[in-house]
Amino acid sequence: MKKLFAEFFGTYWLVFGGCGSAIFAAGFPELGIGFAGVALAFGLTVLAMAYAVGHISGGHLNPAVSLGLWAGGKFPAKDLIPYIIAQCVGAIAAAGTLYTIASGKAGFAIDSTKAGAFASNGFGAFSPDGYSLQAAFIAEFVLTLFFILIIMGATDKFANSNFCGIVIGLTLTVIHLISIPITNTSVNPARSLSQALFVGGGPLSQVWLFWAAPVSGALLGGFIYKNLLQKHSEEAQINKSTIT
Amino acid sequence: MKKLFAEFFGTYWLVFGGCGSAIFAAGFPELGIGFAGVALAFGLTVLAMAYAVGHISGGHLNPAVSLGLWAGGKFPAKDLIPYIIAQCVGAIAAAGTLYTIASGKAGFAIDSTKAGAFASNGFGAFSPDGYSLQAAFIAEFVLTLFFILIIMGATDKFANSNFCGIVIGLTLTVIHLISIPITNTSVNPARSLSQALFVGGGPLSQVWLFWAAPVSGALLGGFIYKNLLQKHSEEAQINKSTIT
Amino acid sequence: MKKLFAEFFGTYWLVFGGCGSAIFAAGFPELGIGFAGVALAFGLTVLAMAYAVGHISGGHLNPAVSLGLWAGGKFPAKDLIPYIIAQCVGAIAAAGTLYTIASGKAGFAIDSTKAGAFASNGFGAFSPDGYSLQAAFIAEFVLTLFFILIIMGATDKFANSNFCGIVIGLTLTVIHLISIPITNTSVNPARSLSQALFVGGGPLSQVWLFWAAPVSGALLGGFIYKNLLQKHSEEAQINKSTIT
Amino acid sequence: MKKLFAEFFGTYWLVFGGCGSAIFAAGFPELGIGFAGVALAFGLTVLAMAYAVGHISGGHLNPAVSLGLWAGGKFPAKDLIPYIIAQCVGAIAAAGTLYTIASGKAGFAIDSTKAGAFASNGFGAFSPDGYSLQAAFIAEFVLTLFFILIIMGATDKFANSNFCGIVIGLTLTVIHLISIPITNTSVNPARSLSQALFVGGGPLSQVWLFWAAPVSGALLGGFIYKNLLQKHSEEAQINKSTIT
Repeated sequence: MKKLFAEFFGTYWLVFGGCGSAIFAAGFPELGIGFAGVALAFGLTVLAMAYAVGHISGGHLNPAVSLGLWAGGKFPAKDLIPYIIAQCVGAIAAAGTLYTIASGKAGFAIDSTKAGAFASNGFGAFSPDGYSLQAAFIAEFVLTLFFILIIMGATDKFANSNFCGIVIGLTLTVIHLISIPITNTSVNPARSLSQALFVGGGPLSQVWLFWAAPVSGALLGGFIYKNLLQKHSEEAQINKSTIT
Repeated sequence: MKKLFAEFFGTYWLVFGGCGSAIFAAGFPELGIGFAGVALAFGLTVLAMAYAVGHISGGHLNPAVSLGLWAGGKFPAKDLIPYIIAQCVGAIAAAGTLYTIASGKAGFAIDSTKAGAFASNGFGAFSPDGYSLQAAFIAEFVLTLFFILIIMGATDKFANSNFCGIVIGLTLTVIHLISIPITNTSVNPARSLSQALFVGGGPLSQVWLFWAAPVSGALLGGFIYKNLLQKHSEEAQINKSTIT
Repeated sequence: MKKLFAEFFGTYWLVFGGCGSAIFAAGFPELGIGFAGVALAFGLTVLAMAYAVGHISGGHLNPAVSLGLWAGGKFPAKDLIPYIIAQCVGAIAAAGTLYTIASGKAGFAIDSTKAGAFASNGFGAFSPDGYSLQAAFIAEFVLTLFFILIIMGATDKFANSNFCGIVIGLTLTVIHLISIPITNTSVNPARSLSQALFVGGGPLSQVWLFWAAPVSGALLGGFIYKNLLQKHSEEAQINKSTIT
Repeated sequence: MKKLFAEFFGTYWLVFGGCGSAIFAAGFPELGIGFAGVALAFGLTVLAMAYAVGHISGGHLNPAVSLGLWAGGKFPAKDLIPYIIAQCVGAIAAAGTLYTIASGKAGFAIDSTKAGAFASNGFGAFSPDGYSLQAAFIAEFVLTLFFILIIMGATDKFANSNFCGIVIGLTLTVIHLISIPITNTSVNPARSLSQALFVGGGPLSQVWLFWAAPVSGALLGGFIYKNLLQKHSEEAQINKSTIT
């Protein structure tokens, strides 16, 4: 049960911090934080929760991560459904809080015809820079694949895994630095669902892509790491002359 | 006594760095650091002091943090008042130094009718983007709650607590990335008090909210971590198959 | 073979993240990440891969790094050619993926007469800010020299090498913060080659400089560290009174 | 002798990276890195060198740091002069390289009447935002005082000193986030001297302040840490209930 609370609070913070910075601060005139600030906020929420609740639940905060780790042989199938539910509930609770705070500014309304409204994800007319469905799918697929590959590598028993929280968080920052203009960046189905539920319209009708692409990328990422990269114990002591 | 000196110097640096960057550098034409730079400055002052004086006083630098850790069972009640006094005195000393330096530019004057003047916190007419009292309270409450929850988690004996200074500092950065437009971001009653004393007027009359919301959020954060998330010793060795 | 997969995936991510952020996000109106965001993206891809695949291949991701480490006595000559091939193939695969995604925006075309097109490197007419061949060569030479010198130092057996991934990644960030206006920043022949192949024209005809300057700088960097800075075992315990 | 090479290369990189990013990239139209990017560049050069040459020379890279550590009882007097010479020579060599590269852009010339020209420091007419001599002195004094105080704390034998390179580097970033508009930020006499020598005129005539203020602040910082904050061995095990 503590694991599920940890995933709930962790995913709440990811959505509150990442989507919140996009909603409140990205476009502030002159002084706004822009896409780079949003990228930093998403990454640093995960960095923090990796160290704050990692020892409780593993700190997945993302259904694609749980599924990718399962594909990589590092997470048991029986925990998948409870984790994913806790993640989605946490994300939706955060979106609700963001909605309440945003309503405290005169004239607030979500314009569901505008790309990226309320930090929602989308493609085509709902892509911030007008990227097609195909481009959006490839981007989300490749980004999530590498996200899982890096998570698998950074938490490998032969890696210096003390740093994994920094690595994983800042990789989420890179992912956003690349792809906010393409899809407003998901790689996290829970984060896409929560925002789409509050926006409705186009973003809600497109939310399938932000489950399909990240999850399929994550599964392949876990498979690739396990089969092409992961060392067996007997291989581990060989490569001492190169950088760790 | 060394503990109190550590809290004095630590909080001085937090206010000098965080509020100083906002006052001197945020709005410089073309090249200014914006809200993202201020967010980074606040976070990095805390990151630094966590490692520089953490071994002396714990490096709280914030009355809400001391109270939240007390609620979480990690700080003794008898030290609360001396710590809070040292923090407020350090913050006020820093604000005084900032005032002296700022006076060295021709035409300097604090306009107490302007939101965010001299890095002050506020809501309604004193919110940088016009957020209501209710929105400001919820934002400060939720942000401080998660700040404490993350501090409790990152310093947990079962966590990889060597990284706690990085985690806590960069979480303060996230907090600012989200909420500068809402309240100019407090989550720290000492930092709000020191700036309000130099501004007076509206910001001073609103300073109560920046004690009430952060402190109540902090108390709930400490309570939640202790009761819903904290593992007992016997639970700690179970979750080995997931990410640390 | 796992080493070569690691270099392939690692260099893919470096190019996908670094060049991708430049192509998709740097110049987005108002909210774009600018050169600083691109600098961060390049650095954080390397930071991540140093921890994710460092234990497999050393995480070079760059022909100049492999050659510099060889010059410094930390990498065997027999592995040079396979590593460099894996790096170049990974970079080209990433550039191909970037091209496919970029094609998903209406009106996309690479203008091979424009400096920095498709994140290509160049000098003279193809330098973002119009720097000469000589200036470009010196910049790339000096930057790669220090890159290798820092890699050698941060992975030295007498250094605190747990942090080397952070150090190396963030040094790549500094390198980009300095020199994007000069050459669009290479210090990595594989990254220059992959982008030039897709752009053709001027950038392709200039790609020789982005092999010659980084490689020669790297060789000198490895030589300098080994001969002027590296301690022998008997010297290592002397300097205890200063900062580690 | 290796110590002096380490200080030479380290200070070269600090000036090349910090001042170089200011000269080449800060003001690039639309995409420039601004003061925040320069602040990051300065900090990350020091972060890198702390881990790359810290084990050789301590990684001071700054006459004020060497003097402050001497005042704090952590650096022997006999090494002061050689260190300071190596630092100044390294800084001047870097400035010369920057000048050579900058000359590779058509129309380059240093305008010694403009505040901040060639990344020089100054006050009054040579302060980027017009701050007086008094304000400049106080700012440089206080910033260097805290810089040394944090260096002393982060390298204390009772602190978690593995992180000291991150702490010290990112503190230099904070220092720049605060004070670039005030003095263009020195806290480092070697860095001020090297740029002033190439600019001449006003900045050269003002360079005394950027020796006097940082050095006096550093001496007081070392003194304060040693006398008010540093624990003796018998005190060190007491404060276990608070955050490390």
